[in-house]
Amino acid sequence: MATSRYIALTEIPQGLPRQDQFTLREQSLDPLAEGEVRVRNLWLSVDPYMRGRMSGVTTYVEPYALDAPMDGGAVGEVVASRDQRFASGDLVRHMAGWRDVAQLSADRVEPLPQHEVPPQAYLGVLGMPGMTAWTGLNRIAQMQPGERVLVSAASGAVGSLAVQLALAAGCQVVGVAGSDAKCEWLEGLGAKAVNYRGKDVEALTQALAEAAPEGIDVYYENVGGPLLDAALANLRDHARIAVCGLIDRYNDAQAGDGPRNLNRLLFRKARMEGFIVAEHWAHYPTFLAEVAPRVAAGEVRYRETVVEGLERTPEAFLKLFSGDNEGKMLVRLDASAADV
Amino acid sequence: MATSRYIALTEIPQGLPRQDQFTLREQSLDPLAEGEVRVRNLWLSVDPYMRGRMSGVTTYVEPYALDAPMDGGAVGEVVASRDQRFASGDLVRHMAGWRDVAQLSADRVEPLPQHEVPPQAYLGVLGMPGMTAWTGLNRIAQMQPGERVLVSAASGAVGSLAVQLALAAGCQVVGVAGSDAKCEWLEGLGAKAVNYRGKDVEALTQALAEAAPEGIDVYYENVGGPLLDAALANLRDHARIAVCGLIDRYNDAQAGDGPRNLNRLLFRKARMEGFIVAEHWAHYPTFLAEVAPRVAAGEVRYRETVVEGLERTPEAFLKLFSGDNEGKMLVRLDASAADV
Repeated sequence: MATSRYIALTEIPQGLPRQDQFTLREQSLDPLAEGEVRVRNLWLSVDPYMRGRMSGVTTYVEPYALDAPMDGGAVGEVVASRDQRFASGDLVRHMAGWRDVAQLSADRVEPLPQHEVPPQAYLGVLGMPGMTAWTGLNRIAQMQPGERVLVSAASGAVGSLAVQLALAAGCQVVGVAGSDAKCEWLEGLGAKAVNYRGKDVEALTQALAEAAPEGIDVYYENVGGPLLDAALANLRDHARIAVCGLIDRYNDAQAGDGPRNLNRLLFRKARMEGFIVAEHWAHYPTFLAEVAPRVAAGEVRYRETVVEGLERTPEAFLKLFSGDNEGKMLVRLDASAADV
Repeated sequence: MATSRYIALTEIPQGLPRQDQFTLREQSLDPLAEGEVRVRNLWLSVDPYMRGRMSGVTTYVEPYALDAPMDGGAVGEVVASRDQRFASGDLVRHMAGWRDVAQLSADRVEPLPQHEVPPQAYLGVLGMPGMTAWTGLNRIAQMQPGERVLVSAASGAVGSLAVQLALAAGCQVVGVAGSDAKCEWLEGLGAKAVNYRGKDVEALTQALAEAAPEGIDVYYENVGGPLLDAALANLRDHARIAVCGLIDRYNDAQAGDGPRNLNRLLFRKARMEGFIVAEHWAHYPTFLAEVAPRVAAGEVRYRETVVEGLERTPEAFLKLFSGDNEGKMLVRLDASAADV
């Protein structure tokens, strides 16, 4: 009988989750039902938004149930199909991640698009993170050519594409990251870079003013905290802040102080808007048509941090919050290990 | 020679301004030049936004110069004109307030619109405050019939019109005010009312949840502070916050804490946008056509707090921050006292 090994959350974490709050379990799979497919996962995605799903309460997505298989983006290969749309060997993307073998309705599986890119790109630069960058800049902030764009977490999976999309649109771009190496990489892309480490609100405000002396039209907000205060202090008239995430807060058991200068929204007639990429997914084909050929042609740079093995998925997830990863964090599974 | 008595600011206030930081002065007026009009002011407007102009720095409007005539909305009667568009006896509106006699270019003066309302209504319900309420609800928050609308400072000049416009649009309205009498008045309009006095963020959050159990689609934000936290906690998906003012902060020498739960913007895919009514003034005729007939017909209720005499203008201004006024704060001038 086929089995699936999966990661389950065993306890609702307070603050930064601990590895011992995750466990590796195994379950037998029922025989494949009509309309289902079985997928051997090759790549799992771990993403910051998953922290919100570990809180036991509904934020914008359902919370993870304790002691049950977690889920998230994954790319894999169909190994058995009882749906005419899929055959063994097809590469697919779906949300039944955090496990080695997924068995699910074919309605919840999509074939990988056909571009000359590695399959895991559809979990990163051409997947949810990439679509998130594109949506925030274009559909939320309505970025215009020549504007001054600030991106936080700028060397991350989302931020690094936001930086490059803004540069490609002819914008002046400032990227904020947490190490000299990351800043150097950003400057190699053509952005100005600010290292936030060791800077309080005042120092960040000053650093942004130096990097963008004319101020900021668009802030692609991944972070929150002191950087949001500093960005607010540097807004231009009619600026737009696309709030993609506030990773600074994801692990806070108690809410911290909010920005002290929210009155800048008023003075600058500015807008701040939260968005969830899932609501914009109807535009994914537009995004893909625009960005995939550029990725395939090597015109878009993206990086991956790869952790090997299902059992290390929690470790990969936790690395998202240490700032040690570069670009998209992925887990690669050993295809030969799965019992399909 | 004609003279003008005016109020000047003598010192940049820290925190709540003091009366001794204002002074009454007098200046002689030059002979009327070609293209100018002389206006005997009958009504002066004092408004919360003027506090921002007393800070010595540019926010969204130029700061008041020290020892010079202050300005602001005023309604008066033309007493001399060297412009063919105006004749003695015409009632006009202009921005050379805080003085009894204004002499200025006719380009900066507009005739009062012709509706059956008292002239001072064009400084309140049919003037900048009214237009501010209408703009925030319609042009910023895109209020839709049947939505749930929260209005802070709901018994004030702006808020009370916002409440009535929202009710007239078929919305469910919750108004927040600072006394039982104000709350009773709001309930008389058909809104639910919440008295914010003595309530911390948690109690306000609970009170709003009781008043609007389905949550809030539109928040007309005049206040900031704990009420903003409470409103954020009660947002519905795709809510819009129109930031008209943050009066809670106008007199703070140091910025206070911001909202601790700004992540609700993200969870709720919500938008928060500051606006300045001056940028929307091209739509004033639309506002007037919609609202003036209803004011003239007595269908819109509005209140005025009237202080008598130019020398009491600073006192009237300061009352804006004590919460003692009801509706629009105005200064009425004794027409016979002016030396025109």
